[in-house]
Amino acid sequence: MFPPGTTVRSPAAMLSLNTATLRPQWSLAECIDGCERHGLGGISPWRDKLQELGVAEAARRIADAGLAVTGLCRGGLFTAADAAGRAAAIDDNRRAIDEAAAIRAACLVLVCGGLAPGSRDLTGARQQVADGIAAILPHARAAGVPLAIEPLHPVYCADRCCINTLDQALDLCDPLGEGVGVAVDVYHVWWDPAVRPAIARAGTTGRLLAFHVCDWLVPTRDPLLDRGMMGDGVIDILGFRRAVEAAGFQGPNEVEIFSELNWWKRDPDEVLQVAVERNAACLG
Amino acid sequence: MFPPGTTVRSPAAMLSLNTATLRPQWSLAECIDGCERHGLGGISPWRDKLQELGVAEAARRIADAGLAVTGLCRGGLFTAADAAGRAAAIDDNRRAIDEAAAIRAACLVLVCGGLAPGSRDLTGARQQVADGIAAILPHARAAGVPLAIEPLHPVYCADRCCINTLDQALDLCDPLGEGVGVAVDVYHVWWDPAVRPAIARAGTTGRLLAFHVCDWLVPTRDPLLDRGMMGDGVIDILGFRRAVEAAGFQGPNEVEIFSELNWWKRDPDEVLQVAVERNAACLG
Repeated sequence: MFPPGTTVRSPAAMLSLNTATLRPQWSLAECIDGCERHGLGGISPWRDKLQELGVAEAARRIADAGLAVTGLCRGGLFTAADAAGRAAAIDDNRRAIDEAAAIRAACLVLVCGGLAPGSRDLTGARQQVADGIAAILPHARAAGVPLAIEPLHPVYCADRCCINTLDQALDLCDPLGEGVGVAVDVYHVWWDPAVRPAIARAGTTGRLLAFHVCDWLVPTRDPLLDRGMMGDGVIDILGFRRAVEAAGFQGPNEVEIFSELNWWKRDPDEVLQVAVERNAACLG
Repeated sequence: MFPPGTTVRSPAAMLSLNTATLRPQWSLAECIDGCERHGLGGISPWRDKLQELGVAEAARRIADAGLAVTGLCRGGLFTAADAAGRAAAIDDNRRAIDEAAAIRAACLVLVCGGLAPGSRDLTGARQQVADGIAAILPHARAAGVPLAIEPLHPVYCADRCCINTLDQALDLCDPLGEGVGVAVDVYHVWWDPAVRPAIARAGTTGRLLAFHVCDWLVPTRDPLLDRGMMGDGVIDILGFRRAVEAAGFQGPNEVEIFSELNWWKRDPDEVLQVAVERNAACLG
C-alpha cells in the first residue's frame, strides 16, 4: 500500500502526550488510558504523577498500552545557595534517572534551574548547572538514560532555567561527551535568530533527543501558564518539525501545554482530540 | 580636589530620565523641571509627550535646563502586513528623525516591530526591519541623528520587536555602515550568554549609543509593565555599566521603568530621588 521505505505517519501515532498538558484533569493512569484510546504513539510523564501511580505499576501500564516514553519530566534544578542544596539536587537527579530507566524513557529532561534566591551571579549559576550535569552523567550512562538539556525561554532565566538558547545547551554538551543532548521545545526557542543552525548542529552531534510542541499566543496573558494549542499562535511549528527531521530526529511531536486559562479547564478527551487534529499540520 | 583626568560622577549627573518612568504622572514640561530640580544630567523623551509640549518649546526648555538628550523614544515598528503599512512606518520614522534633530537627541531609539498580525514569518519580519532601517538611514545621516537599534527581550518577539539579541542588532548594523548603532537596555539583554562579547563588539565598531537601566523582578507579575527599580531585582547592573564603559561608552545611565504596579503609582519626586540614590550603586 505504501512505497518501500515510507512509514505511516498518522497525526495520532506521531504525537506523544506530555502529562503537563492535562495536569489538573488526569492522573497518569488516566493519561495512559487516554493515549491508548486516542491512538497516541507516546507519553512523557512528570515525576509527581509517576510517583503517585508508582514507578513499577506505571512502567507496566505504559508498556501494556504500547506507548513509547519520549521523556521523563523533569530533572535539573541544579542551582542552589549552598553546597548542601546542590548535593540534594544531585541526589534527586540520580533518583530521577532511575525512574526514567524503569519506564524506559528516551531521555530525562533537565530544566536546569535559575538564579539561587538573592543571587545576581548568572555566570556562577551557569557553572553550577555545568557541574551538576557532569556530576550525574556517570549515573545516567550506567542506567542507559540520555540526559536532555532543555533550553528555556529567556523569560524564565531568573527563576527556572539559566540555559536559554539551543547553542548554549549544546556548548554545555560538547565537553561532556556522550549521554547528554538537548530537548527542543518550539515555545522556548522559536524567537532565536540562531536556532536553525543550532538544530542542525544538534543533529550532526547526535544530541537531538526530544521535540516538544505547543504555540506562542498573542497576547500571552501569563508568562508561565498561557501556552497555546498548536495552530493558535505565531510559531512556525511545521518549519521546526522539518528542521528537526532534516537533522535526523524521527520521534513524535510531544505536546506540552501549560494552560491554566484554557486547556486545563476543558474536557481531557476534547484536548487530546484537538491536539491530534492540530498535529496533522505539524508534520512534514 | 580630584586627580587629573578624573571627572565628577555624581549619581544624579550620571542619570538620565526616560520619561516612560513617570508616564502617567508627569508631562514633559514637568519631567524637565523635575530633572533640573534633582540635578539629573539628561532626559530621554517619548514622542507623545514631546508632541504634547511642542517640539520647539521642548527643545528650548531642555536646553535651558542644561539637560543632555540621551535619546528620543521611539522610532521603528517597521513590520506591517502590506506595503502601504511599511511605507507609512518609514514616513513616520522620518518625522521622528526630524524631532530627534530638533531636540539634539544623541540618538533615535528604534523598537523595530514584531510579527505583522496573522503572520508566522519571522524571517520575513526581520527582513522588513532591515529594509526599513536602510530606507530611513539616509535621512538620519542628513539630519545628524544616529539610529539606535534596541534589541528587546525575546518575550516581546511576537508583538513588539523581532530583534532580540545584541549580536543580532549588530549584525543588522554592519552592512549599513555609519549612522546606526545600538541601545543596550539591561532589562532586555541581561539573560544573554553572549552579551558581554557583544557589548565589546559594539564598542569596537563605535555603535554603543545608549545604555538603559532598570531591574528584572522575581517574580515578574506582568511581562510589559512590571519592571523594577535598580537594586530591586536580579540584574548585575554594575557589571553591565563596567562592560559598556570598558567598551568606550561615557554617557549617563538612562532609567526606563514601566511599572504600572508600583512606580507609576508613586509621587514622581520620590521616584526620582530613589532612582538617583540607587544609581550610585550602578556606576563603576
